Amino acid sequence: MKAYVYVSLKKSVLDPQGKTIQGALHKMGYRGLQEVRQGKYFEISLNGGLSKDQAQSEVERIAREVLTNPVIEEFRFSLEDS
Amino acid sequence: MKAYVYVSLKKSVLDPQGKTIQGALHKMGYRGLQEVRQGKYFEISLNGGLSKDQAQSEVERIAREVLTNPVIEEFRFSLEDS
Repeated sequence: MKAYVYVSLKKSVLDPQGKTIQGALHKMGYRGLQEVRQGKYFEISLNGGLSKDQAQSEVERIAREVLTNPVIEEFRFSLEDS
Repeated sequence: MKAYVYVSLKKSVLDPQGKTIQGALHKMGYRGLQEVRQGKYFEISLNGGLSKDQAQSEVERIAREVLTNPVIEEFRFSLEDS
């Protein structure tokens, strides 16, 4: 089973990295961009031994306790059989 | 309209950052992980003026030409009305 975890800055937190990318894209001539925000993305392959529920709670725990800084970041994740 | 671009290392490229995260998670007692790979994730808000097709091709161009290093990375993206 595969898990995809997406970590991004909370909406209320400034994202200077995203702002820089946006500015660069604008200078390069790309139009139609209102805002760019950057986040992190983790692809986790899980052992076949886990049930869907176990995988769900394990991945949620890893995302919450390790991959995300709860002060400034939020996460979402999805599971996929493979 | 919002676009989500996911950039990850090609399968054939070693990912030491992911390996480090995997090792750390293992040491911390999380079990059931086979592999962890890290990537980047961009959330792009587009002007309302673009049609779905225009947005599709603009985002694809940005992802291919700017956000991704084609030698070692690959990308996928999705669009979402909002």
